[in-house]
Amino acid sequence: MSHNTFGRLFRVTTWGESHGPAIGCVVDGTPPGLALDEADIQHWLEARKPGQSRFTTARREPDRIRILSGVFDGRTTGTPIGLMIENVDQRGKDYADIKDKYRPGHADITYDLKYGRRDYRGGGRASARETAMRVAAGAIARKILGAAITIRGALVQIGPHAIDRARWDWAQVTRNPFWCPDRDMAKVWEDYLDDIRARGSSTGAIVEVVASGAPAGLGAPVYGKLDSDLAAAMMSINAVKGVEIGAGFAAATLSGEENADEIIPGEDGAPAFLSNNAGGILGGISSGQDIVVRFALKPTSSILSPRRTITTGGQPCEISTKGRHDPCVGIRGVPVGEAMMACVLADHLLRHRGQCGDETCKE
Amino acid sequence: MSHNTFGRLFRVTTWGESHGPAIGCVVDGTPPGLALDEADIQHWLEARKPGQSRFTTARREPDRIRILSGVFDGRTTGTPIGLMIENVDQRGKDYADIKDKYRPGHADITYDLKYGRRDYRGGGRASARETAMRVAAGAIARKILGAAITIRGALVQIGPHAIDRARWDWAQVTRNPFWCPDRDMAKVWEDYLDDIRARGSSTGAIVEVVASGAPAGLGAPVYGKLDSDLAAAMMSINAVKGVEIGAGFAAATLSGEENADEIIPGEDGAPAFLSNNAGGILGGISSGQDIVVRFALKPTSSILSPRRTITTGGQPCEISTKGRHDPCVGIRGVPVGEAMMACVLADHLLRHRGQCGDETCKE
Amino acid sequence: MSHNTFGRLFRVTTWGESHGPAIGCVVDGTPPGLALDEADIQHWLEARKPGQSRFTTARREPDRIRILSGVFDGRTTGTPIGLMIENVDQRGKDYADIKDKYRPGHADITYDLKYGRRDYRGGGRASARETAMRVAAGAIARKILGAAITIRGALVQIGPHAIDRARWDWAQVTRNPFWCPDRDMAKVWEDYLDDIRARGSSTGAIVEVVASGAPAGLGAPVYGKLDSDLAAAMMSINAVKGVEIGAGFAAATLSGEENADEIIPGEDGAPAFLSNNAGGILGGISSGQDIVVRFALKPTSSILSPRRTITTGGQPCEISTKGRHDPCVGIRGVPVGEAMMACVLADHLLRHRGQCGDETCKE
Amino acid sequence: MSHNTFGRLFRVTTWGESHGPAIGCVVDGTPPGLALDEADIQHWLEARKPGQSRFTTARREPDRIRILSGVFDGRTTGTPIGLMIENVDQRGKDYADIKDKYRPGHADITYDLKYGRRDYRGGGRASARETAMRVAAGAIARKILGAAITIRGALVQIGPHAIDRARWDWAQVTRNPFWCPDRDMAKVWEDYLDDIRARGSSTGAIVEVVASGAPAGLGAPVYGKLDSDLAAAMMSINAVKGVEIGAGFAAATLSGEENADEIIPGEDGAPAFLSNNAGGILGGISSGQDIVVRFALKPTSSILSPRRTITTGGQPCEISTKGRHDPCVGIRGVPVGEAMMACVLADHLLRHRGQCGDETCKE
Repeated sequence: MSHNTFGRLFRVTTWGESHGPAIGCVVDGTPPGLALDEADIQHWLEARKPGQSRFTTARREPDRIRILSGVFDGRTTGTPIGLMIENVDQRGKDYADIKDKYRPGHADITYDLKYGRRDYRGGGRASARETAMRVAAGAIARKILGAAITIRGALVQIGPHAIDRARWDWAQVTRNPFWCPDRDMAKVWEDYLDDIRARGSSTGAIVEVVASGAPAGLGAPVYGKLDSDLAAAMMSINAVKGVEIGAGFAAATLSGEENADEIIPGEDGAPAFLSNNAGGILGGISSGQDIVVRFALKPTSSILSPRRTITTGGQPCEISTKGRHDPCVGIRGVPVGEAMMACVLADHLLRHRGQCGDETCKE
Repeated sequence: MSHNTFGRLFRVTTWGESHGPAIGCVVDGTPPGLALDEADIQHWLEARKPGQSRFTTARREPDRIRILSGVFDGRTTGTPIGLMIENVDQRGKDYADIKDKYRPGHADITYDLKYGRRDYRGGGRASARETAMRVAAGAIARKILGAAITIRGALVQIGPHAIDRARWDWAQVTRNPFWCPDRDMAKVWEDYLDDIRARGSSTGAIVEVVASGAPAGLGAPVYGKLDSDLAAAMMSINAVKGVEIGAGFAAATLSGEENADEIIPGEDGAPAFLSNNAGGILGGISSGQDIVVRFALKPTSSILSPRRTITTGGQPCEISTKGRHDPCVGIRGVPVGEAMMACVLADHLLRHRGQCGDETCKE
Repeated sequence: MSHNTFGRLFRVTTWGESHGPAIGCVVDGTPPGLALDEADIQHWLEARKPGQSRFTTARREPDRIRILSGVFDGRTTGTPIGLMIENVDQRGKDYADIKDKYRPGHADITYDLKYGRRDYRGGGRASARETAMRVAAGAIARKILGAAITIRGALVQIGPHAIDRARWDWAQVTRNPFWCPDRDMAKVWEDYLDDIRARGSSTGAIVEVVASGAPAGLGAPVYGKLDSDLAAAMMSINAVKGVEIGAGFAAATLSGEENADEIIPGEDGAPAFLSNNAGGILGGISSGQDIVVRFALKPTSSILSPRRTITTGGQPCEISTKGRHDPCVGIRGVPVGEAMMACVLADHLLRHRGQCGDETCKE
Repeated sequence: MSHNTFGRLFRVTTWGESHGPAIGCVVDGTPPGLALDEADIQHWLEARKPGQSRFTTARREPDRIRILSGVFDGRTTGTPIGLMIENVDQRGKDYADIKDKYRPGHADITYDLKYGRRDYRGGGRASARETAMRVAAGAIARKILGAAITIRGALVQIGPHAIDRARWDWAQVTRNPFWCPDRDMAKVWEDYLDDIRARGSSTGAIVEVVASGAPAGLGAPVYGKLDSDLAAAMMSINAVKGVEIGAGFAAATLSGEENADEIIPGEDGAPAFLSNNAGGILGGISSGQDIVVRFALKPTSSILSPRRTITTGGQPCEISTKGRHDPCVGIRGVPVGEAMMACVLADHLLRHRGQCGDETCKE
């Protein structure tokens, strides 16, 4: 991953600031012949779109995706796919406060420290708006993966409230505004977030993304490991502070006996595993089991309570964010995490096919 | 990061299997004129070397590093630095068991699934032996970072036993065989690991690496974020299952008020922060605070207790690893984590200097 | 250079087909703080624009560049610069002939052989229209290079008619429609091309691009050599079939005595050279002399005379291109060659600064 | 291509100086399961080895290749292949002259200008000795290409003496010390070079490399064009000053009618071409025809006649190279050019398979 590009054979380059005229991306390396139109991408953007419940920011963008190249007669041509969304909800803002003061916990100060300047409007390049392009690219990646590979995400913790994994039901995920697979916990979260929203505060969250049906053999040891690329992909999402695979940090507390996933002959001749602490990845290569990634998002620091900070001129002051509040940005992280999973798998599928051919990569 | 190379301007490419004739790496992009000799690298390899206490594997390699190119008259020339260590402790092994059976939790099975074959001797390419070359590259990276940047690692948890951070003392780290900064906990770990070793079992661990003195401005949003590259680097280390920055997963439980690191004017004119939940990175760019990374390592699955598995032919069987046991591979992860931190920072230092010049990157 | 991206620190990714809704590019890695607006880029696009004399194709596009990101308050921010030009002259075409027949010498057939499909309208991705984005990126590259580095191109041969280098006068280049530095030869070319145009034929040409004032030290042996990157850059331009540096192919006929550029102490302390057969590059690294590149462009095969070919179904047929004719596409190659030189030098300037700092790279 | 690595999926990273302890390379991305042993590589190194006739330098190295990793039980494993050749003929040299004086036409001066230092012994990193590793990597690339693709090189011009293409006979190439396909011209060259050698002078040359049997569809427009990568690969070879594809520079003088290769239905259903001015590449993608590349090498400047130069301290002086002389380094360029062709094709074969699968890439 380099500056604003990720992936190697399936490569995504994004551009755009929150309040510039548009945001966009270039998706390069897509196989030719895939059926693709704007509705295929729009479908996933709708899921990500903020402003759909009282628990996400009220910014309302139509977020209408345009395919500008790389698709002809409804099929990908193998040439770069240019995508763009015009920004339409950015006029008439007053950014005086953000312009002159650094928000604690925001990238305002580090952009200035690095570049000596920044587009302060709405967070500029550091805005979560950039993630719309990840979702758009992910829609194309899903086309490459095909129907046999399913990628699903869920929110598994908000603040101190973790779901009960015994109650996990994928069907619940789309029935509440939180992507919560635990129906009971969704109600707890509703009350919890209403209170946070009322106080103008915010909270962190944990997202889990699962890919089912991915073939064994994806990943390229030792620096192109599948888990290494997944870690980079998830950690590049705004507000993410931790990434784990399978048992993750809990593996630190396990014994060798508990951790090792025993193997038996599977029904179809392929190996079967009796557990999945590995999260579907051994030695950086997929095993054919579900690929399981979790990532933690910090709470947004756009909060009502005044915090100590400094001005761009270095003077001490206080800052308090009024207006739009996103009580839990982790909610919006679910479709973005799914998209990044899709992009990483698509890239590795093509890379594996390049090096090894299709012989060992058949499901 | 691609197959066996990591970094962009400071690029490290490693090669070699555990029981081939040698392992090595090529370090490309090093600035010219740095004082460097084999002793500089050997120093860090000694720290990493296994077999130094009863808590790490008994394999005894002299691990004598050779510099084969890129250094002339004691200084780097700017051309690629070829490094090599001959393998001398690999004769006379009996690998019949590993050859024909897959060890649960090992990469044996996924290498076969991907490539259709593998060098089964001692783990082949998936062996932790590869990490010697990370340490060697890290030694060169430290030369680039210079004396103003300090990188230190510590083990902060073994199995269920976490250190008490209030007792953190860097001076303790070299006074026990665990890199433990908490003197009291080191004693607990000693008993705990003796018991695990006696039972032929193993346990996981958590490593923390801290870089102090790194300048603000390192990192390249949005896919070359410093934390994204650190996550990839750490997750590429053998046995690592989770990576976090600053508050990490704990950030999920924090409120926006708790999480945001308040800013005040520093004594030297630079901004000062009242806390460091961000782990020194905001929006993917270093802030000048300490850069703090933690990663979790799973327990090795080379254990005495028999586990269910299958043969390479797909038949069910049991496997039990006799001989060398590494009760906690996390111990050896500390110098490797330090080295990866050094490599990522060196790469970003050069990248930042390339794009932005030295103006904003001076100390 | 990978699929649709070139450069390493200064990276340009282009997208778009000749007759899609738009073409565009993303320029990543630009240093922050450079003054840049759309007029700066438009200036160079005007020079490249076809349809300015009877010797280039009659397609008339306003080619109005839009900067969509990466510039704020008139300065680059260090984030990716998204550029776009809408295609407005592409309606109402009849492509039946190109759709079903392969034009000899065109990429029609190889796109189909590779991808199994292609956007046949106006050449699709293989159209020279893509070069507008190279020119746009080159305009930004020139900002990085600064005023001390001058890049100029000229046409030095059309068909069999080469200029007389003794008559070379840069001032002439903008005074004729051919970028010809030899006033007398410009008149010969005028008659020559009028005849070719009248017959619906076409001819090849040779372009020379010279960079003056570039510092010594640019280039990264041995696979990032400056001449290697220049060769790749020029050969990637449509219709280019040969690239040479300095004496180029003529060096094959020289003796060692003739070829080696003798060195004397220069007035300013820097080395001075008595000739420039090297074209300013020794061992892949710039010497401080003028950097001289030449490239040959083949004649377009869009000609009136019928040629034998096959249909997409594999049946023999004839094809003859009516309508717009570009008697010598080499003319349009001059600003494109200049732009590629600028992009390669800008990339190497940043790469050199990254690895070696500014010490050895000061002019 | 970056600093010392070339290729994307098939990646070669070389290291080593002429007179260090060894030279080597890492070949990454090789498909697993290919039969490979040291003899396979040694075979091609023997062809390249200097000191085999009086027309190449007298340095005698056994050049014994060692495979240090990536091969197990006689087959590639898919992991990086480490290769090394120890330098044994480098002791007892007197480099006082080269150490303190810059040889005109050599990289001595530019390495110093870039890096502020250099390994002056035997040319250091700029020595043609590095090309041994290209040949070694090329041997592996040929394994990937398989028997259906043949790569052959020939010398087609020495000084002013070009071969008569009507007399081209591939069988002659191994029957003279020049790789000359024209038996009569080989005799002319013999006399010509004897004279040059007697005078301690040198001359340039032109090499042609032809790949037959390569499938259509290789190449990735627009910056990963096959001809663009070939140009970069050939231009990166020591002493090369020009590269051309197919008709090359001669295309500048052709009319559209002459240049366009007409197409007819082939016997096997594939398209057949009536000529090959394109050199097998259209729009950057292979057409299935022979891929034809030519490159020009300058004469070495290690000559007996004294030339004006400066010392490293900037003082004017003269230099004259005694001892070993290579009257025509172009001779040694033939196997190197073949190797680079093999590497580029192997990389593109894997890249094409990655993006497009095997459907359109079958021969």
